[in-house]
Amino acid sequence: MKQLLEGYIESNQQLFLDKVKEHFKPLTIPEQLKKSMLYSLEAGGKRLRPILLRASFETYSPNVEKTYSTQIALEMIHTYSLIHDDLPAMDDDSYRRGLLTNHKVFGEATAILAGDGLLTYSFEIIANDPLLSEVEKVYILRELARASGPSGMVAGQILDMEAENQSVNLEQLEKIHALKTGELLRFAVSAGAFLGNATEEQIQHLEQFAYYLGLIFQVQDDILDVTGDEGKLGKAVGSDESNHKSTYPKLLGLDGAIEMKKRYTEKAMELLKHANANTSRLAELTTYFSERDH
Amino acid sequence: MKQLLEGYIESNQQLFLDKVKEHFKPLTIPEQLKKSMLYSLEAGGKRLRPILLRASFETYSPNVEKTYSTQIALEMIHTYSLIHDDLPAMDDDSYRRGLLTNHKVFGEATAILAGDGLLTYSFEIIANDPLLSEVEKVYILRELARASGPSGMVAGQILDMEAENQSVNLEQLEKIHALKTGELLRFAVSAGAFLGNATEEQIQHLEQFAYYLGLIFQVQDDILDVTGDEGKLGKAVGSDESNHKSTYPKLLGLDGAIEMKKRYTEKAMELLKHANANTSRLAELTTYFSERDH
Repeated sequence: MKQLLEGYIESNQQLFLDKVKEHFKPLTIPEQLKKSMLYSLEAGGKRLRPILLRASFETYSPNVEKTYSTQIALEMIHTYSLIHDDLPAMDDDSYRRGLLTNHKVFGEATAILAGDGLLTYSFEIIANDPLLSEVEKVYILRELARASGPSGMVAGQILDMEAENQSVNLEQLEKIHALKTGELLRFAVSAGAFLGNATEEQIQHLEQFAYYLGLIFQVQDDILDVTGDEGKLGKAVGSDESNHKSTYPKLLGLDGAIEMKKRYTEKAMELLKHANANTSRLAELTTYFSERDH
Repeated sequence: MKQLLEGYIESNQQLFLDKVKEHFKPLTIPEQLKKSMLYSLEAGGKRLRPILLRASFETYSPNVEKTYSTQIALEMIHTYSLIHDDLPAMDDDSYRRGLLTNHKVFGEATAILAGDGLLTYSFEIIANDPLLSEVEKVYILRELARASGPSGMVAGQILDMEAENQSVNLEQLEKIHALKTGELLRFAVSAGAFLGNATEEQIQHLEQFAYYLGLIFQVQDDILDVTGDEGKLGKAVGSDESNHKSTYPKLLGLDGAIEMKKRYTEKAMELLKHANANTSRLAELTTYFSERDH
C-alpha cells in the first residue's frame, strides 16, 4: 500500500515537472528572472499540495488533465512564499531542501522579484487554461487568492512572526498554522473536489478534513525539527529552537505533540468518512503526512 | 479646461478612497498587516492609473460603477510594486510622496508581506465583484496578471536593475520603461475600454496610444528628477544620478529629453485620433501627464 502511494506521488511529481516546463518554455522574460523562478520551483520537494489536489479531484472524477494548471499555480504560490520567507528580513535561511536558498544564489532583489513573479504568473496560468470554463476559472482564482492572501497565508506569516519570542497557547498556535500552512492545503482539497464536480456539501466536509490535515502537517514538521535526520530533511534540525519559534513540542512536550498529532489524525479520518465518496487515497495521504520523515 | 480636468481627477481620487475603505472594512486580517497595506495605499498620489482606466471606460460607456474594483486592484498592484521597490535590497528609499516608506514605518518583513498581500488581494477583489460577469472577470484577471507579472512589470523591474551602472541605448531604455511603467498604463487603458464595451480594434488602437503615454510619463519623471521642485515632488531630486539610473536626460541631454517627450506626445495624440470615439478626456490626460510638475 505504501509503495503504491509512493508510486502515485512520484508519477505525479514527474508529470508536474513536465507541465512546469510546458508553461515556462513559451514565457519570454529576462533570463535571470526565469532562472531564479525555475530554480526554486524545480528544487524538488514532494509536491504534497499538487498531489493532494489531484487525489481530491480523483475522489470524484477521472480526467486529471483538468487539474494541472491549478496544481502548478498552487505550487508556484507555495514556492513564492518560501522564497520570501527565507529572505534575510524574514527567517534568514541559507538552505532549503539541501540547496542554497534563492537569495543566496540570485541575490535579494532578484529573489524578491522572482517571488512576485511566481505569485502573479500563477493567476495568469489559471486564467489562460483552455480546459477550464469561465465559471471554473473565476472559482479557482477567487479561492486561490483568498487562501494565499492577507486573510489566508499572508496573515499566517504575520501572526507567526509576531509570535516569535512570545508565549502562545494551543489555540493561537492552531490559528497560526491553520492560516500559514492550512489555507493552501484547504485550497488544494476544495479546488480538486470542485473541479471534480463534487457537491457543495462534499466540498465543505473535505474543507473541515483539510483543516486537521494542515495541523497534522505542521505538528509533524515541528516534531521533525526535534527528532529528524538532517540528511533526509535537507536542513538543520533544532532551527525552531534557535529561531525562538512557537512549536508543538515546546508547548506540549515531545510526547504531548505526538499525542496531539494522533488526535488530529483521528479527527481527519472521521471527517473523511463523511465526504460521501471513496476517500481511500486521501486517507493514505493523511497517514503519509502524519508519518513522513522529511 | 485644466481646472475641469483637475476637478475630474480629484473627484475620482475621493471616490477611490471611499471604495478602498469599503473593500478593507470587511477584511478580517491581522492589525499590523492591515495598517501596513493601507498606509501605502492611502498615501496619496494622483491615482493616475485609476483615472486613466476611468477615462478610457467613459470614452465608450457612462456607468463608472463597473470600473471601481479594477481601479482599486490596479492601484493596489502599483502600490505593492512601490513597497517592494523601496526595500533596502532594491532601491533602498526612505521617503516617498513626502512620507516615510513602508519598511521604514513597519519594518522590512511586514513591508514584504504587505506588498504580497496587496498583490494577492487585488485578484480577490476582481473575482468577487458582483458588477462584473464571469467573462469580464477572467479577462480582467488575465490581463492584470500579464501586465504586472514576469513578462510585464516584474520583467521591467529586473531589466531596470540590470541596467544600473551600465550604459543603455534609447531602444533598451524604451523597452525597460514600456515594461516597468507602460504595462500597467496599457492595462488601465485597455481594461477601461474593454469594460466599456469597446471593439477589439478600438482597444488595439488605445493600447498603442498607451505605449507612448507610458514613455511620456517616464521621460517626464526623469526630467523632474533633474529640474523638479523637491517640495512638490515629496522626494529628493537628483536621486537618479546618485543611484546610477539610466535616464533620458543622461542619454539625450535635458533638451534632447524634452524634444523626445514632444515626439512621444505627438504620436500618442495621433493614435488617439484613430480610436474612433470621443477621446478628448484621454487627450487632456496625456497633456497632463506630459506637463505635470510632481
